[in-house]
Amino acid sequence: MDISSYLSNVRTKRPLVHSITNYVSVGDCADIIESSGGAPIMAQAIEEMEELVLKADALYINIGTLSSAVLPSMFSAVSLAAQNNISAVLDPVGAGATEYRTETALKLLAQGEFALVRGNISEIRALFGFRGRTRGVSASEEDLVQESDLDSLGTMARDFARERNCIIGISGSTDIIASSSRICFVRNGHSIMPRLTGTGCMLSALCAVFLAANPLDSFEAAAAAFCMMGLCGEIAAKELKEGEGPASWRIRFLDAVARLTPEELEKGARYEMR
Amino acid sequence: MDISSYLSNVRTKRPLVHSITNYVSVGDCADIIESSGGAPIMAQAIEEMEELVLKADALYINIGTLSSAVLPSMFSAVSLAAQNNISAVLDPVGAGATEYRTETALKLLAQGEFALVRGNISEIRALFGFRGRTRGVSASEEDLVQESDLDSLGTMARDFARERNCIIGISGSTDIIASSSRICFVRNGHSIMPRLTGTGCMLSALCAVFLAANPLDSFEAAAAAFCMMGLCGEIAAKELKEGEGPASWRIRFLDAVARLTPEELEKGARYEMR
Amino acid sequence: MDISSYLSNVRTKRPLVHSITNYVSVGDCADIIESSGGAPIMAQAIEEMEELVLKADALYINIGTLSSAVLPSMFSAVSLAAQNNISAVLDPVGAGATEYRTETALKLLAQGEFALVRGNISEIRALFGFRGRTRGVSASEEDLVQESDLDSLGTMARDFARERNCIIGISGSTDIIASSSRICFVRNGHSIMPRLTGTGCMLSALCAVFLAANPLDSFEAAAAAFCMMGLCGEIAAKELKEGEGPASWRIRFLDAVARLTPEELEKGARYEMR
Repeated sequence: MDISSYLSNVRTKRPLVHSITNYVSVGDCADIIESSGGAPIMAQAIEEMEELVLKADALYINIGTLSSAVLPSMFSAVSLAAQNNISAVLDPVGAGATEYRTETALKLLAQGEFALVRGNISEIRALFGFRGRTRGVSASEEDLVQESDLDSLGTMARDFARERNCIIGISGSTDIIASSSRICFVRNGHSIMPRLTGTGCMLSALCAVFLAANPLDSFEAAAAAFCMMGLCGEIAAKELKEGEGPASWRIRFLDAVARLTPEELEKGARYEMR
Repeated sequence: MDISSYLSNVRTKRPLVHSITNYVSVGDCADIIESSGGAPIMAQAIEEMEELVLKADALYINIGTLSSAVLPSMFSAVSLAAQNNISAVLDPVGAGATEYRTETALKLLAQGEFALVRGNISEIRALFGFRGRTRGVSASEEDLVQESDLDSLGTMARDFARERNCIIGISGSTDIIASSSRICFVRNGHSIMPRLTGTGCMLSALCAVFLAANPLDSFEAAAAAFCMMGLCGEIAAKELKEGEGPASWRIRFLDAVARLTPEELEKGARYEMR
Repeated sequence: MDISSYLSNVRTKRPLVHSITNYVSVGDCADIIESSGGAPIMAQAIEEMEELVLKADALYINIGTLSSAVLPSMFSAVSLAAQNNISAVLDPVGAGATEYRTETALKLLAQGEFALVRGNISEIRALFGFRGRTRGVSASEEDLVQESDLDSLGTMARDFARERNCIIGISGSTDIIASSSRICFVRNGHSIMPRLTGTGCMLSALCAVFLAANPLDSFEAAAAAFCMMGLCGEIAAKELKEGEGPASWRIRFLDAVARLTPEELEKGARYEMR
């Protein structure tokens, strides 16, 4: 794929991403949308859902701090996005950890037409009928993607993608992105990244930006976003000075997202299309 | 104006600012209130509104993630502030972007007696009867303040200030602050600032701190806050090292807010009173 | 005490801490839980309280932005924790500042069986029948702990601990941790720390991590957490470069939390057991 063009489109179009997300990493999500070249709007009042969804180039739904108060807005937003052909991204944070989250994520999937569902392997498994063992909101250690599992996991993801007619993105040491017909493995990233709260939420937000700016090929757009996330994570890790750790990494990471050029993305992206 | 005295008063009095604000930039708002020399309290429960407003030296209302659940508290707080002569600041985030926001901001204006309304040009236009084209929560590009428009915009802001009997603050490449009889243009600031989420919210919070500590001249207090915001933005931008971007800027900016002396503000402020 | 073992246990066990906390410092709380070696989950929906509390190794309740909407979840969570012998930590932010907060904190105390209540001296006094003068959410200046008051404050804290059958942690220039039979004074820390929003909330979250990983001696676990907080604060302050202030401190502090070794904690902790 011409991966650089996906980032160029983000930078040129400055797509508006409407997010209904959790209050833990909401600031980080706004930051990555803005830094990457998009324009964020975070809102949850049912009274303004229609106006905001219709203005947006993509919708991002994240169930990280789900509450019944915000559910009507989420359902309304995904319906409106489906009716108006606006790309929607679902981050099913903690699916598998509680029935409430698993069921809510499944209801959202049933109600809308998501372009992409992005989660860790536990969350994705929980949604697609495999018994996951989600512990908290991070991937269970038993569920970390192993190199030897990649083929079968890629096939599983493609099957899910067919079943739901959407792209499936699974983050791990190797990321897996699958559409109904294609599979991509992304090998960018750094071991510090799972040690931070909010990296998964930021990745999903970045995917929403890329899908918003690249409606013609959502699969490649999502793969490009995964590459950018991982590559900026590598750059940030390389820049860490003596004594610096995860909090400094997050700052350097967001800085890297802001300055990465399409050419640098092209050069640094490590992915394999199948 | 003796701009240094406005910051001195903040540092000496440590004014308490009660904020009802959005959950995206709420941490940044608490940080700037604390760093500048104020004491933040963020609360939204109707049960404690009266006690908190009566303790506060200023009230800050921001509609960035408005919801019907928090509206009664906002209305109660602005009424209490008006009855008790406590300076109130309104940041009408996204006014013009949705009817809900525009109408809620107008209702808040009708209910209370705000000392200051601070927004970008789109938001201010939306509230005062001009047809804005607010896109998301940032100023529309067509609405960016041009040098050649300054005179007419200044007059418009002064007319709004007269109509509502409050100070109007408009942020842009040149900021405009207007009371019913005076206009101030502020030329501090840096081009990186509009590229960050939450800078507008932080500016409004800083204005609340300055108004709280300087009740005798809210117009000059607001102008001083705009100068401090822009000047600290310049300082932070100057300190950015190779490879650093917006996320580093925010950290360096908040650090600069904490250490700026009244004398440095006096020396670095670039404003024009008319 | 063998303080290093308390941190070793955190790092080895990676305890899951379920938090219902305020939306101002929630990201910082997630960060410190993750950085110290724990696994954070932030959630508030009543529908998933039971599943989450039963999975958790500790529960952290913080009333910083209390609202009636979240109260049923808080009460349910503390009851479930009590029934299932899960360590619970209460941070009564702003107790004494409003009746609503004081009363809610007292109701939570009555409903649950907290292992630890951590606050500043104003908040602790408000809860235990002394007339406090809480101003906003920071300790009143009159209430700052003086060296000469330590003996009487230590005795007071121990009396509270007996009355409520829980550990009491009071942060100040010298911290006081008391159980029904023991008192510990901690002299780590740095003068920059009270100048930041969220340090108290982070300290309570860190205590929850330590209690979760060290259920056999909650008193020493809490004391170890106080030492670690203060020591990492000192390290971060020492690393501040020319021009850096509180915002940089917070980043360096979280980095220090992530990298501090049990041996460094042993060596740097300054505490006095009585």
